Amino acid sequence: MSLLNQTIKGITPVSKDSAAKAQKHLDNLLKPIGSLGKLEGIAVQISAITGKVTNVLKKKCVVVFAADNGICAEGVSGAPTSVTVSQFLNMTKGLTGINVLSSQAGSDLYLVDIGVNGDLPYEKIINKKIRRGTGNILHEPAMTREQAIKAMEIGIELVRDLRAKNYQVIGTGEMGIGNTSTSGAVIMSLTGRSADEVIGMGTGMREEDYQHKKEVIKAAVAKRKPNSDDPIDVLSKVGGLDIAGMTGVFLGCASYKIPVVIDGVISIAAALLAARLNPLTVQYMIPSHLSAEPGYAAAAEELGLDPYLMLDMRLGEGSGCPLTFFLIDCALAISREMGTFEQGNIDGSVLVDIRTSKNS
Amino acid sequence: MSLLNQTIKGITPVSKDSAAKAQKHLDNLLKPIGSLGKLEGIAVQISAITGKVTNVLKKKCVVVFAADNGICAEGVSGAPTSVTVSQFLNMTKGLTGINVLSSQAGSDLYLVDIGVNGDLPYEKIINKKIRRGTGNILHEPAMTREQAIKAMEIGIELVRDLRAKNYQVIGTGEMGIGNTSTSGAVIMSLTGRSADEVIGMGTGMREEDYQHKKEVIKAAVAKRKPNSDDPIDVLSKVGGLDIAGMTGVFLGCASYKIPVVIDGVISIAAALLAARLNPLTVQYMIPSHLSAEPGYAAAAEELGLDPYLMLDMRLGEGSGCPLTFFLIDCALAISREMGTFEQGNIDGSVLVDIRTSKNS
Repeated sequence: MSLLNQTIKGITPVSKDSAAKAQKHLDNLLKPIGSLGKLEGIAVQISAITGKVTNVLKKKCVVVFAADNGICAEGVSGAPTSVTVSQFLNMTKGLTGINVLSSQAGSDLYLVDIGVNGDLPYEKIINKKIRRGTGNILHEPAMTREQAIKAMEIGIELVRDLRAKNYQVIGTGEMGIGNTSTSGAVIMSLTGRSADEVIGMGTGMREEDYQHKKEVIKAAVAKRKPNSDDPIDVLSKVGGLDIAGMTGVFLGCASYKIPVVIDGVISIAAALLAARLNPLTVQYMIPSHLSAEPGYAAAAEELGLDPYLMLDMRLGEGSGCPLTFFLIDCALAISREMGTFEQGNIDGSVLVDIRTSKNS
Repeated sequence: MSLLNQTIKGITPVSKDSAAKAQKHLDNLLKPIGSLGKLEGIAVQISAITGKVTNVLKKKCVVVFAADNGICAEGVSGAPTSVTVSQFLNMTKGLTGINVLSSQAGSDLYLVDIGVNGDLPYEKIINKKIRRGTGNILHEPAMTREQAIKAMEIGIELVRDLRAKNYQVIGTGEMGIGNTSTSGAVIMSLTGRSADEVIGMGTGMREEDYQHKKEVIKAAVAKRKPNSDDPIDVLSKVGGLDIAGMTGVFLGCASYKIPVVIDGVISIAAALLAARLNPLTVQYMIPSHLSAEPGYAAAAEELGLDPYLMLDMRLGEGSGCPLTFFLIDCALAISREMGTFEQGNIDGSVLVDIRTSKNS
């Protein structure tokens, strides 16, 4: 059996029992029940994943996959394709948004060339190049089915390696001009939604360019005829190598029981592919911010995930992940460090049952 | 002239010039223009406040005002009033949510007794008690106009002291059973909105208790007839001592040009009072999370503030502030540490103008 199939079949559910114990523990802390809202939800989810009532996820990283996209030949992006290489190199120099945000959250950064159209012989870049960019999906499939499988397996192997380095939570990022087009095509193909509902305008894109972008992606999906019941068919026909690598990370994290954070629209397209390959993967996914790209909400709705941050961000690179690492740290600290009603009593304070009341 | 009047009159606008310079600086960093959304907005706002293009706000604190509310005699809260004292004491012991979250964000915590119904001779509690709880607003004013002014001045003086200790950003918190009722009454009085629009159900409150809570607050506002054009009249007739102290903090921060973070519905009621006393105060306010209490949105709409976090939190205590301190840290780090297009060039990477494009 291939690594991909083995991984997909090996994913098991999180522990409902640990989730229940974690919630019971939270309900006994010095606050009204449920009053820390989604922070409590995060703590419970992590407990369900790790099997422990209280947790520390000290070692964090964001994995950024870089790849080029053949569809750029159709003028779907405001930026030239050379930006993929230049911005990826800027990441090796610590100059980009994801560098700064990772540093704030105490997170490491891994840079993976999975399909950049250019040579990147740099020590800080992990070379996993499958091909130099994808095919132009308006005229040919993005990649072969074998390449899509290989790219997902690279993501899975990367998680295996990160686990060996004791990483406890992983964020998913990307760099690739043209990838809001490919992720849009993937989300359209999987959900049956229209280009109008899924494709975003981007920044600095003129109205006529935006209409053109939608027409191109609509035409590409119509021509490639991806089978919505076969996620690998969708990925290989209209996806991208970065999306494939990220899909592998979602599968790998679920397989190795590591919480994995979703960033924006490209990341959630990969999350949706992983969920279609095995719905249990969703139990390991943690959303971050509500991307300004409309395709995000369509995918989040199907996954049943509600993002925590409303920041109108549309940078990509994995930038939502470090922000969410801090929320995870806070959620877990609440669970570990807050006092219980019993402790309140022992310490001489008036023990009052505010468990079912609120600060009101 | 009283300290309050002097403070209100002394507030000056933030620097538009510094804001423009900060935005220009952000637009020259290695990302599409505006792609970091509200994080950029935070960085620009801080620049407008401090007058500097890049900033570090290292020293942070949350101020928690504790006070009791006479309206509790009408059964508007699920929790007994003794919880104000017991939970406030738990804060001195590091056992509560705000203790844990402050610690995560590297923030200090100041605990101020401004009107608790009980003696609290503890070293960690700053005694600024004005009276032992407010009057029952269904039958009498919450406090005299003089007491309301005094309580606001305590908030102002506190900011003065914190500034002397070099605090650079201040969060606003509270502890006081009954204070979603009083803050609801304040928001209703100032905005003209109905109890149905403003008053929340709280936790563990049965439907009939909720209807009762709304009826009581509606009746209290009708009986006290606060003058919506006179914020001090509203505050003294239907507000609370905690709200008054927080109002003073908002005024003081605007006066001393210190960014101040809003927490939930009680905090934003105080923010609204401050904004009515001088609309310039809003320029110094930073929202945090969208509180589950409906009055929050009503007040935020008038203030023109969009919260950053959607966490369904309804704990109070100032709990949204430390979460937002991290977002502020990230916003300022972006501004300080990201590379410029010129730097990208100097470092040998391909300089491409992605300023008006996006990762697409």
